[in-house]
Amino acid sequence: VLIGFVGANGCVTTSPNHRVRVLWKSDMLIVHVQVRVKLESIEAFRRATVENARQSIKEAGIARFDVLQDPSEPSLFLLVEVYRNAEAPARHKETPHYQTWRDTVADMMAEPRTSQKYNNVFPSDESW
Amino acid sequence: VLIGFVGANGCVTTSPNHRVRVLWKSDMLIVHVQVRVKLESIEAFRRATVENARQSIKEAGIARFDVLQDPSEPSLFLLVEVYRNAEAPARHKETPHYQTWRDTVADMMAEPRTSQKYNNVFPSDESW
Repeated sequence: VLIGFVGANGCVTTSPNHRVRVLWKSDMLIVHVQVRVKLESIEAFRRATVENARQSIKEAGIARFDVLQDPSEPSLFLLVEVYRNAEAPARHKETPHYQTWRDTVADMMAEPRTSQKYNNVFPSDESW
Repeated sequence: VLIGFVGANGCVTTSPNHRVRVLWKSDMLIVHVQVRVKLESIEAFRRATVENARQSIKEAGIARFDVLQDPSEPSLFLLVEVYRNAEAPARHKETPHYQTWRDTVADMMAEPRTSQKYNNVFPSDESW
């Protein structure tokens, strides 16, 4: 379903009076979290994060929880968190596995982590 | 399987004489392609890219081909291409659907697209 348009001022709006169609509705929320860890913490971070991912994919609100690593810079990880709806991230943060992970990795970070939110375009929400 | 270590000089190596374990073997290649399109091309780009993704996921070498969009900047798309091995991207580029997509979207780009390669950490290669 189409929900976003853009007007002559370049801003996104929900008004269909605006001409250009730009945003389609999806209930999902996809978050990419970039984490740079200390060199000596790479293995421990990987272990803690894989354990968190294993538990997270059992949550009803989580469709995927992938863990990726930059091969040219192994201290750089990307967590691909695919939530089925906007409430799921808050539910996730209440779980023991998330809280254990958060506390375990706190001292492993080389810098504060950053994140980027995405809207789902393909596949359809049900196909995730 | 562990394949990467890092020495005192901070460089990644395959030598187990080096102390810190940093990189684990995966046959997969995950590529995130960031595309900024012209505002007036958002809908046409979405349509062409979804069609390409639908065909791409039928390729034996492709595990996923997700299309995401930045909700705060709808002209920014992220293609998440998950290849089963290092040869799969070249096979993909030989397909008619890729070539049609490439030619169709060529004039829609607001700037050259950029990409980032990732190593798979979780889930296991077979679980993608």
